[in-house]
This record gives sequence, structure tokens and C-alpha cells, in this order.
Amino acid sequence: MIHFECDYTEGACPEVLARLAQTNMLQTAGYGEDEFCAAAAEKIRALCASPDAAVHFLVGGTQTNATVISAALRGHEGPLCAVTGHINCHETGAVEATGHKVLTVPSEDGKIRAAQIAAYVEAQANDAAFEHMVKPGLVYISHPTENGTLYSIAELEEISAVCRRYGLYLFLDGARLGYGLAAPGADVTLPDLARLTDVFYIGGTKVGALFGEAVVITSDALKRDFRYFIKRHGGMLAKGRLLGVQFDALMTDGLYFRVSEHAIRLAMKLRAAFARAGFQLAYDSPTNQQFPIVPDALLEKLSKKYSFSVWGKPDAEHTTARFCTSWATREEDVDALITDIGA
Amino acid sequence: MIHFECDYTEGACPEVLARLAQTNMLQTAGYGEDEFCAAAAEKIRALCASPDAAVHFLVGGTQTNATVISAALRGHEGPLCAVTGHINCHETGAVEATGHKVLTVPSEDGKIRAAQIAAYVEAQANDAAFEHMVKPGLVYISHPTENGTLYSIAELEEISAVCRRYGLYLFLDGARLGYGLAAPGADVTLPDLARLTDVFYIGGTKVGALFGEAVVITSDALKRDFRYFIKRHGGMLAKGRLLGVQFDALMTDGLYFRVSEHAIRLAMKLRAAFARAGFQLAYDSPTNQQFPIVPDALLEKLSKKYSFSVWGKPDAEHTTARFCTSWATREEDVDALITDIGA
Amino acid sequence: MIHFECDYTEGACPEVLARLAQTNMLQTAGYGEDEFCAAAAEKIRALCASPDAAVHFLVGGTQTNATVISAALRGHEGPLCAVTGHINCHETGAVEATGHKVLTVPSEDGKIRAAQIAAYVEAQANDAAFEHMVKPGLVYISHPTENGTLYSIAELEEISAVCRRYGLYLFLDGARLGYGLAAPGADVTLPDLARLTDVFYIGGTKVGALFGEAVVITSDALKRDFRYFIKRHGGMLAKGRLLGVQFDALMTDGLYFRVSEHAIRLAMKLRAAFARAGFQLAYDSPTNQQFPIVPDALLEKLSKKYSFSVWGKPDAEHTTARFCTSWATREEDVDALITDIGA
Amino acid sequence: MIHFECDYTEGACPEVLARLAQTNMLQTAGYGEDEFCAAAAEKIRALCASPDAAVHFLVGGTQTNATVISAALRGHEGPLCAVTGHINCHETGAVEATGHKVLTVPSEDGKIRAAQIAAYVEAQANDAAFEHMVKPGLVYISHPTENGTLYSIAELEEISAVCRRYGLYLFLDGARLGYGLAAPGADVTLPDLARLTDVFYIGGTKVGALFGEAVVITSDALKRDFRYFIKRHGGMLAKGRLLGVQFDALMTDGLYFRVSEHAIRLAMKLRAAFARAGFQLAYDSPTNQQFPIVPDALLEKLSKKYSFSVWGKPDAEHTTARFCTSWATREEDVDALITDIGA
Repeated sequence: MIHFECDYTEGACPEVLARLAQTNMLQTAGYGEDEFCAAAAEKIRALCASPDAAVHFLVGGTQTNATVISAALRGHEGPLCAVTGHINCHETGAVEATGHKVLTVPSEDGKIRAAQIAAYVEAQANDAAFEHMVKPGLVYISHPTENGTLYSIAELEEISAVCRRYGLYLFLDGARLGYGLAAPGADVTLPDLARLTDVFYIGGTKVGALFGEAVVITSDALKRDFRYFIKRHGGMLAKGRLLGVQFDALMTDGLYFRVSEHAIRLAMKLRAAFARAGFQLAYDSPTNQQFPIVPDALLEKLSKKYSFSVWGKPDAEHTTARFCTSWATREEDVDALITDIGA
Repeated sequence: MIHFECDYTEGACPEVLARLAQTNMLQTAGYGEDEFCAAAAEKIRALCASPDAAVHFLVGGTQTNATVISAALRGHEGPLCAVTGHINCHETGAVEATGHKVLTVPSEDGKIRAAQIAAYVEAQANDAAFEHMVKPGLVYISHPTENGTLYSIAELEEISAVCRRYGLYLFLDGARLGYGLAAPGADVTLPDLARLTDVFYIGGTKVGALFGEAVVITSDALKRDFRYFIKRHGGMLAKGRLLGVQFDALMTDGLYFRVSEHAIRLAMKLRAAFARAGFQLAYDSPTNQQFPIVPDALLEKLSKKYSFSVWGKPDAEHTTARFCTSWATREEDVDALITDIGA
Repeated sequence: MIHFECDYTEGACPEVLARLAQTNMLQTAGYGEDEFCAAAAEKIRALCASPDAAVHFLVGGTQTNATVISAALRGHEGPLCAVTGHINCHETGAVEATGHKVLTVPSEDGKIRAAQIAAYVEAQANDAAFEHMVKPGLVYISHPTENGTLYSIAELEEISAVCRRYGLYLFLDGARLGYGLAAPGADVTLPDLARLTDVFYIGGTKVGALFGEAVVITSDALKRDFRYFIKRHGGMLAKGRLLGVQFDALMTDGLYFRVSEHAIRLAMKLRAAFARAGFQLAYDSPTNQQFPIVPDALLEKLSKKYSFSVWGKPDAEHTTARFCTSWATREEDVDALITDIGA
Repeated sequence: MIHFECDYTEGACPEVLARLAQTNMLQTAGYGEDEFCAAAAEKIRALCASPDAAVHFLVGGTQTNATVISAALRGHEGPLCAVTGHINCHETGAVEATGHKVLTVPSEDGKIRAAQIAAYVEAQANDAAFEHMVKPGLVYISHPTENGTLYSIAELEEISAVCRRYGLYLFLDGARLGYGLAAPGADVTLPDLARLTDVFYIGGTKVGALFGEAVVITSDALKRDFRYFIKRHGGMLAKGRLLGVQFDALMTDGLYFRVSEHAIRLAMKLRAAFARAGFQLAYDSPTNQQFPIVPDALLEKLSKKYSFSVWGKPDAEHTTARFCTSWATREEDVDALITDIGA
């Protein structure tokens, strides 16, 4: 079976693994207070052009989302996101487990628009029963989104401005950030993210690491006591150095960006092949997730050899499938798939 | 600096790391539904003589404690533990973050006695205001305890019987379980734990793995839907195979027990040296944590070369220190320390 | 100003107030363990033909909803309701504050259908990512709904059957239950509710009491330790007798039903007048809430003299308004309104 | 049976009840936005010499405690209180239900000392594992305490100064505040409380009202969005006017203080009688709760005619009992008790 169902079917890229092996028997302090974490954080601050940012390393995305949101909000506040947002759909209520209702606005493509945010806040403020509703306190966006789409720098500037106008934190989930930065036409950079959001993260789990997400906090209020929240949510890794070592490797000599580009090149190759095969794409994704709408008969055949995710059922004879590439995807596997769809 | 302050200052034992490297590019399903997790679980079930146990792998101890306790209790219930219990002292309120008050009984040595549990439950049941108090729903014990002490099989049988009499879950935190099983005089075995508790875990983070705790559930009620709780608490590792691979390696050919014995041998060597040097021991620990009461002047001198934890200040001239050995401790470091204390 | 904006603009019906005055200086035990609560509970059990039901008295609806739902669910479960459900819209996330995500299905009229429940559960069970979603554990319905609509006995039977098939609790919010029982054409009775739900409540706050909701629990699992949950959620009234006295008065000689009928008669009078005036009704409500779609110019004029709720804005020239009657509504006020709308 | 077991065995003082009856059929806005709440708040602000204070009315003490604490703290923070504090002992974990661990210091008499607070904060700040502990964010004191004792103005000034030095909120639970203000030798006034705390409440439930606690907030940060928290915790009474009417009556013409003095006079009469009878007092209480240590044989006899609370068992032949007076206590009942103890 050749796996395309997600971007975490292998371990880590060899350079990362090598660093782990190399440093294995060195003794360090625990809980992320080691020299590897310090070095990785410094590199990230430099890449973000954000010398005062706080950088923390957590193990996984759901943990990171709940930790950040819980640290940012007072009890009566909730995160506002697209109805498709990962925190709303696929985290078993981890945010609600911290006491906060996830608030949603409709979305066709996984993105939320600045105007939707403004409209939501204004409508609530003008409702006589406003105190009977959860108050938005933070906007959660994913970049790339769960549908592979990207925000433009113009869209992100607008969202950031609306958030600042209404006193909302802006939190960007970058679980697949590498693929977003490397996508064709992408105009959002790490310094942009540091400048426009209050907190975002650079995903490692799906982009070359064994595991790990690097949280970058620029909001001073949110920096305060953040490590307590990591511990409280069970996210403070005893051997925190494992995160530092991995991110230090990824952020050295552009490794993170190089492996992301590999995934994007293969995803674009797949995308072109889907087009040649006459498949429509459910979302216009320039990133490592591709969503072709495939005739069921063909998909059935493909499923003997390839694994992929089922995303929807637009009509009786077709299925929307998700195929992911990653830093680990082999070109020969992509080529085989292209052959098998007859493109 | 030579580190004795805890048992997680290095990475993983070489066999574990080698397996991670070896399996790195294999493609597997995510979230612990891979063949490595299955194999590791099977080995653990066999070692526990508990063919029906559910085995789950989590990343760290705080996460495991909060996940298990939250899955076991209804809202008005709390875990009952020694006042020294890790969940009460050093988890930044992770259990309370799930809504449950941690209930405590006094303890001098980190252990809780069956009679204390019975007395607590009886006193509450006989109090007119019983419904105004948090009801004990689970007993949490650590083995070894936070003070390095161990339960005897007789003590554990009694505790288990009391828990069953009063309808309390019994949950054993085995973050350092390997060292407990390998300790001189220890008479508690894995099958005993599976038989006497409802849920316990076999610690990997401190015993040879990069990270990971293997949760063994024998209670049918608690087995139900447990994976939802893992996800809800941010503990479902995307590349769950990393946990499976590590535990599979540790449970193969007795590796887990062998590395534990190494730590215990060096701890006993240290213990004997402390005695020769005339230091009292704060706790009678047969495990990898030793708590000598050291003259401050000497400790000051030692601190230039060794790191250790400060545990207490019994009088103006002495400090209780904690020295830990682990699977990774080098005999030459122990010998150097022994020389430097003049034993 | 004549108030039609809700059904709690006055105090209590005179019989209730008289009983409070009459019993004022009697000494009783606290926390609902008095003879008045016992008597009221007994009457409610008799009216429900449910001799084994547990009956508890709480102060208000939001408190009751959060208390019941938190007592019923394990952490990873959520209540499933119509998107219009009170717990989803107007309780400031009180359910999420207890850690549970509110799950929703679409609804045009405030009701949820048995088929929607079944489809929701089946779809989740068939989704590969089912453990990454909050699992429905309870169905929450309001009767009357937030839009004044009612379930028929056939609909309720179906919902109950689906809930039992899938192991879901069925919880009915009866904040306005009196008006639902007294509505023309209503075919659901108290014994039906006791038979078909696991827990429901008989609203007092909006139906003749100063405050208070009588919770009727027929599920044995949910009966267990329920009073702990009341206390934990801050709902255990020190002078619990106040609730007992009020419900005892309301359940004596049919007072509860009589005052409900008064409200319904006046609501139907209003409804007929709205029809004569040519207003469409946003919902087909046989209960004490009426939702006429009124030309803005007229509504503006009415607002000088009457207060009402604004429910929506179907087009540029019209507003959906909500007018409520209650046990306290004066016929002369209804007549004045009817005159002023020119009906 | 004559009830001395608590101070909430009757309804409300007649003036309060009369005002409820008088205003019963007036129509008002709901949720505390009525003219009675406004008037009562204004009177309380005047009595506290605190024109900018926010005043909110809640139904009961547990609800008030959880609401205030949850509104004041970030997730990783906890309230610090005497181990005897009501939130620690008798609220079924209502504070933990909001995610916050209750932190405690020892107390013999129900009071906490400024030096204890400072020592707690300093010790934690100097502990290497500080981020692994719940951080104190608020100090909770009761006045009178659960043992009937009172803070002097000097003690309160010191506590307030320590709280401000360390950035802790100071929250005073005044469930029995009237009795504290009226106690012989009491030197703390309402303006002192407003000046020295960030938030406190004036208890109504135990001091003449049917129910109700008036929360006075002087901290600007805590004032913000406080009503959302009331709703979120199920404490927003639909007919909020009931609270306004009652507090308006209590704060008119010194009624609150007059009824408090009545209880104190009778408590002091009892106290003197206990002394004459040769009973030791477990606590030196100048307030309405008295804690005589009574020979078991006599107590057994008294229990046929009087109800009281059992507080402890200091030795095999004696019991510490609690006898409460209140606004409603009849002098003849006190006299009968005095006769029956032979004093």
C-alpha cells in the first residue's frame, strides 16, 4: 500500500534523525530549558525578524491549539473560526474541554474573511442579549487551511486589522505552515506572520520532524506565564531537548523550507495530472493537499494500491478524495499514481 | 556538569533509537493504529498475563494522569492520593483543569495506606454535609512513589480490596515502574499490577525511551471510548508509531528490565556510599532516587560539579538532596561522586 | 410601557406568594431536605404517574441545563440539539464551561427530528475520524421550543426510540412546559414525558413562580448522586424550602395548569388578531410566544407603548417580533395591543 | 424541634417579604436590569463610600464564589485560602469545576495571616519547579470566617498590602457579613472592605433575605464583562428584580444592620451562658456562630429538643457543637436553651 492519506505516515527526515542520534547521550536540563531549545528559538526569532518573540515547543497540534486558546481567553470568551476549522471539527472538543465554546462562521474553502469577523462582532454587540452569548476573544485561522487553501498577504492584513480594532487575539494554526510558505504564488512570509498575528505556530509534525510545533508569541500579554499553561495541559515534554534538537536541525541551512518545496513540487505534479485526467478539484489548493473529485469506479480501483482520505460525496457517482504529499513522498509513488489515473 | 537531578537528562537507550532509525521511512497509519503499537501492546499484555487488557500509548506522565482521571470520574468525584502525590504537587493543576478536585491524605513517605482510604470514605459518608464535599471516585498511587518508596504486595492487595469494597477505581502511576520492579526486595510484578489495579502505566520517558507511557486498562468500564479521551486531552500523537516502536523495542528480550536493573545497581552503590559517608537518608528508597541529608558546606562544593535536586531543608546546616540514577547513568560518574563525598 | 417581551416581567401568582408569606417563619432544614420539597415532589410524581422518579428543585433554567448535562455525560460526549437550542444560543457557553461541546443539527422551527438524530450518529460512527469528534451522549429538546413550537406525541415517541436505540439520554427542557401542556391540540402529557425522556423539567420561573424549575429524573443512572451536581454547580439553594413551597402551591388544585391556560387563551387571541391584521407568523406557535412579521413603520409606533423582542429581519421593511403572554398578562393589555395593530 | 443548626432555617424578615408582595405585579425588565436592582446598588455604593463600585446580585454563596474566582483568574492560577475555607471544604469542588485548584495554608481559627500569604508566594517563586505548580492569583478570606472569627482592621490592612505587593486579587466572602459588622469589638466597616479588597459580598441569604448576595467590585479589571460570568455560571436570575427588591429593603433605614444586631445580642447571651455552664469554646467567636465543647451526655439530651451542627470530637466524652442565631431567632428559644444547659 502506498500512503497518500495524510502527511505523517513516515518518521522524520534523515537530517533530523541524525541530530537526535548525535546528541542522544548528552546530558541536558529538562522541560525545554536546554541549549538546543534555546538555539532553535533563536533561529526562529531571526527567521521571523521578531527578536522579542517568545518561542515554545509543543508536541502536537491539538495540544497546541487548546493550550494557546486557554491561555489567551477569559472564561466567557470563545475562539471564532471557520466552521471547517480543525478546532471545531476534529479535536474531540479539546477547546471546549478547557471551558470555551468554539464560535463559527460559514466557509466554503476553509478561510474566514475579515468582513465576517467584523459582522459577527457587530451583530453580537448590537444584540440585546449580548451577555447571554459567548463573546469572541480570539480569531483562529489555519494557514494552509484544512482544505489546502492559503490566505494572501492582503487578506491577512485585513484580518489582522479587524482583530486589532475589536480587541481580538489573532492565532494562526501553522500545522502545515512549511507547505504554505513554499506554495506557488504564496506571498505571506514568516516575518509577516510575526507582525500580523499575536501567536502562530510552525508545524513540525507534518513537515519533517518526528513531532513538534514551534509556537511563536508576539503578544506581551500572552507571553506572560505561558509555560504554566503548557504544563497544565500536559504538553511540557520531560525531554524537551527532543523538540529543540529537531527544530534546530529543521531551521538550519533552510532544511524546513527545502523539504516543504519537495512536497509542493510533487503536489503540483499530481494536481496537473488530475486536471489532465479531467477531474475537478473541490478546492483550489496550491499546497500539499489535493482534493480531486474522482469517479467512484476508478477510486475503488485505486484503493487497492493507494490509501487516501475520503472527503465528501458530491454526487452518486463521484467522491472527493484527499491526496497528500509530504517531505517524505517518493516521486516514483506519485508517478505510479499518475499512471494509474491514466493522466 | 554531571547530571543527577532527574532521570531524563539523556535521550533513549541505543536499541530504542536504532529501531526508530530502522523503521523511519516505513509508511504506517497514524494515531496509534499501526502495527508497531499493536505488537508492543501484545507484548505488554503477555508480560502482564492480562490478555484482555487495553493498552494505549501516551507521550508523558501529566498528560496520562489527567486523561485517565478525567475518563474515570464523574464531575463530582475526585482522585484521592497522598498529599505528596505528583498530581497534587507538580502538575500545575492539570487534574483540576479537567474539573476534579484532588483529595489528599497525609503521608510521610509518599505512600497511602488502605486504612487511610477506608477512613476517608467512611468519615465522608457519615458527615451530614457529605453532598457538599467532593466524593472520592479513584485512588491514585505512585509506584515507586515520588520519594522512591515502594508498596509491598501485601499493601497493594489491601489497597485494592478497600477500593473494590467502596467502588473506587485504583490507578497506579508507574512513571518509574521499571525501577520499582527491579528494586531489591520488590515483590510486586506486572501481573500483580494488572490484577490489583483498574489501570496503571509502564513509564518509558524515565526508563529508556525518548518519551512515552504505556497505559494498561483492565477495567471494562474504563476501556470504553478511552481513545476519545486521549484525543480530547491533546495526547493522540499523529505519528503514534513512534510510541509503538519504542515500547516494542523496550519489551523485546527484556530490555526494559535490563536497563532498569542497571539504574538500580548504581543507585544501591550510591546509597551504600551515602551511608558510609554518614549521611542520613530522608526516605528508605530501594529505587533509583536517593535522598541523602547532606551538610550544606559539602553540598555547595558538590554543586560545582554535579547537578541534583533540592528536596528540603531539615535544619540550618543540612539539605535533603535528591540524586537520581537512570538507564543512562555512567558508572564512572557515580564513582566520581562517591569519591567526592569521601565515602 | 406594557411588557410583552418575555414571560418573566412580574413576580409570582398570588397563591404562590401567599404560601411563601404563610410559611415564612416556620423553621425547616436547609438545602431542599424539608417537608415542603418532599410534598411538592410527591405531587409531581403523582402527576407524572412516575412513582420512582427523583424530583429536584433548581432555581433557573441555565443552571438546570448545565447541571443535568454535566451529570449525564462523560467528558468526550456532548449534547445534540437543534441549532436554535437555548443551550447553544443564549447561555453564554454554560454547557461548554462544564467541558462539553454542544453539537447541533439544522432546524427551521426549533424542533429536531428523530431522523436527524439517527443520521448524525450513523454518520459519525461511519467516519474514519470518529474518535476525533465529540460523541453525542444526550439529546436536548425544548418543549415548547424557543420558537413556540411543540412536539407531537408521535414525534416524541420516535425521538425517544432513536435515543434508546443509540444509547443517548433524552433531556427535555420544559422552561415553558405549562404553556406547552395547555396549548390547543397539544397531545403530550406529563406521564408521556416521564415515560419517554430520561430527565425533563417543569418550568416555574415563567409559569407562575418567583423562580424555580422542577427536575424529574426517571433514569436510574442519572439519579445517582445528582444532588452533588446541584451543589457543584452552585444551584443548591440554602433555603430550598422556597422552591418546595412554590411548587407545592403550583401543583395544588391545578394552579399550574390554570395559570398556563390563561396565558394560552390570551396568546391565541393575539394570534388571531395578528392574522386579521394580515401579518404572517414566522413560526406556527400554539403556545404563549407569538412571532408576527410586522411592517417596520407600525412596529416603530408600537414600541412607544409596548415592549417586545426583536427576533429577525426577514426583509428591508419588516421585522419579526416576539410577543409573549404569561400567567400574569392582563386581558386589557392584550386588547389595547390588538386595537393598536388595527385588528 | 427548635433549630439552631444554621442561620437559614426561616424565610425572610417581614419588611423584605412585604416589599416583594408590594412590588409583585409591577412589570420590569429581566436579568437584573430593573429599577430595584439599580436602587439597591446605589444604596450599597453609598454605604461603601465607593461611588465607582460595580454591584451585582447573585442568588447564593457557592455560585458567587465560583463566579468571582472564575472571572478573576487565568487558567493556571488558583485561589489561596485557609484550609478551613468554605471553597475548600463545602462546595463540592465548585471552584475546581471551573478549572482552578484551591490552594491552602494551615489555620486554627479560620483566618489566614498576611505573613502566610507572603511566605507561600515567596516559597513558590524560589522553587525551581515553580511552573509545575498552580500559581496563587487571588486570596479568598471569609469575614466572619467559617469558625465565627473576625479579622481586625489591622489584619485586613496587612493582608491587603501583601496582596497588592504580589499582584493577587483580594476576595472577601461576606456570606455572614452583617453579623461581622455588628459584632462587639468589630472595627471593620463597609468602606474599609471596599477600600481594602478587590471584590467582596454582602450576604443576604443568612441575614434577612429569602436569598441573595450583593457582590461589590472595586477592581476595574474584574468589573469588565462580569455579567457574562454570572450568566455562564447559571447565576443570572430571570426575575433579577427579586434580588433588587430584597436588597433595597435591607439597605433602607438600616434594616440589614438592625437584624444583624438582633442575632449578635442573642449569640452573646448564649456565649455567656455557655461560659457559665463551664463549656469551653472551640473558637473565640464574637459573631452569630458559637462553638461550645459540650459533654456528650448533655448534648444527647439537648438533641431531643434542639437541632445544632456537630463540628468535631475533641475527646471521647465531648463534642464541639455549633449553635447559630440569626435575624429570625426568637429570644424565648435562646432562653429555653440556656435553661436546658443549666446556665
